[in-house]
Amino acid sequence: MLFRQLFDGESSTYTYLLADTATRQAVLIDPVLEQVERDLQLIRELGLTLAVVLETHVHADHVTGAGRLRERTGAKVMASSRGAPCVDRHLSDGDVVRVGELEVRVLETPGHTDDSLSFLCDGRLFSGDALLIRSTGRTDFQNGDPGQLYDSITRQLFTLPDATEVYPGHDYTGHLQSTVGEEKHHNPRLAGRTRDDFITFMLARNIPPPRKLDIAVPANRACGLDADAASGH
Amino acid sequence: MLFRQLFDGESSTYTYLLADTATRQAVLIDPVLEQVERDLQLIRELGLTLAVVLETHVHADHVTGAGRLRERTGAKVMASSRGAPCVDRHLSDGDVVRVGELEVRVLETPGHTDDSLSFLCDGRLFSGDALLIRSTGRTDFQNGDPGQLYDSITRQLFTLPDATEVYPGHDYTGHLQSTVGEEKHHNPRLAGRTRDDFITFMLARNIPPPRKLDIAVPANRACGLDADAASGH
Repeated sequence: MLFRQLFDGESSTYTYLLADTATRQAVLIDPVLEQVERDLQLIRELGLTLAVVLETHVHADHVTGAGRLRERTGAKVMASSRGAPCVDRHLSDGDVVRVGELEVRVLETPGHTDDSLSFLCDGRLFSGDALLIRSTGRTDFQNGDPGQLYDSITRQLFTLPDATEVYPGHDYTGHLQSTVGEEKHHNPRLAGRTRDDFITFMLARNIPPPRKLDIAVPANRACGLDADAASGH
Repeated sequence: MLFRQLFDGESSTYTYLLADTATRQAVLIDPVLEQVERDLQLIRELGLTLAVVLETHVHADHVTGAGRLRERTGAKVMASSRGAPCVDRHLSDGDVVRVGELEVRVLETPGHTDDSLSFLCDGRLFSGDALLIRSTGRTDFQNGDPGQLYDSITRQLFTLPDATEVYPGHDYTGHLQSTVGEEKHHNPRLAGRTRDDFITFMLARNIPPPRKLDIAVPANRACGLDADAASGH
């Protein structure tokens, strides 16, 4: 399997490229609109064909490149049935997305948003904005729910093997990856905290909404192709 | 082997943590002063002991964390004999740094600066500012020399196996890694360019010096511990 992590500095978003080295078919997880040309160039240089774009959720802090990539490559866009209506396939817990010889398993991990998915492929967990490195996604918009997020992380993600590599949707401190074992022991929001503690902590936070919330959510429900929404008009 | 890539967003610098899982001894390559606490916390959480700090060169765009890390952990700082006088061990081409069961091979790759080293460990090449992803380091200060850089890359780094993973000192476009094969074929400064073409291109560039040049170089010659130099006084 070919694997690449990519970064958008403006929104601190990680995009992930996975490809089957036999068929050269590729998956992109959480592409960013402004990075579509970079991503297409890398896919071309690596001799890959983009088959599938996966979205972990309807993002509030950047506009997705999914629709643009679909237009340019014919890739199928997939996300939760609770998420963007523009996608080609709705995914549910336990679904498996097959791309060449790759198998990507879908986990429903709501709490950051009600449509949040995580993806598991070959020992790597792509945790979107549910589990971040030494942190978690916020829970104060898009039907977020701290109790649900606690359950998603502790009952689902933390039951994976400790060595599972964790690749989040964002990081703001220069960390690129972690493991399930590390987060179980060292994530300050979760280690040694009860469900009630976590809910109290999350509800007491008072942080401003993402700058792009009102632009990004409607744009992303249209796979990033709603130009009016994306430009804020 | 345990491996982590870390990022400093301010200077777009990558720092690398390598550790031997048997003895838990660790190496940091190119740590950044402002990220010392982050790096120490990660080392602690992973149950590692920092044994060695390696510098690819005397940096001009950020201040090293090497000296601070040495004070805090007792780690030995190592760099080129043409580089900072503050180090514990001077390294030359062909040297091997042994840390637990890790073996880090030293390659002299001058051209970005006259003291530039690359490090090779377990199929991973840490190329400093010699070879960047789809780019190269600049050659217009600190005794940089475009012909020398071309030779370092094409005669040394490009003779490594194509599958060798390339981890540079910086990236400004959200790429995190590459391979020797990819850079041979797709690096626009090198693929299909003669040595003379490369020299002409590099000499014709007219870009401003790094913002921190006058602060960072003297500070880094003191392993980042020259407070007056680091603060610009």
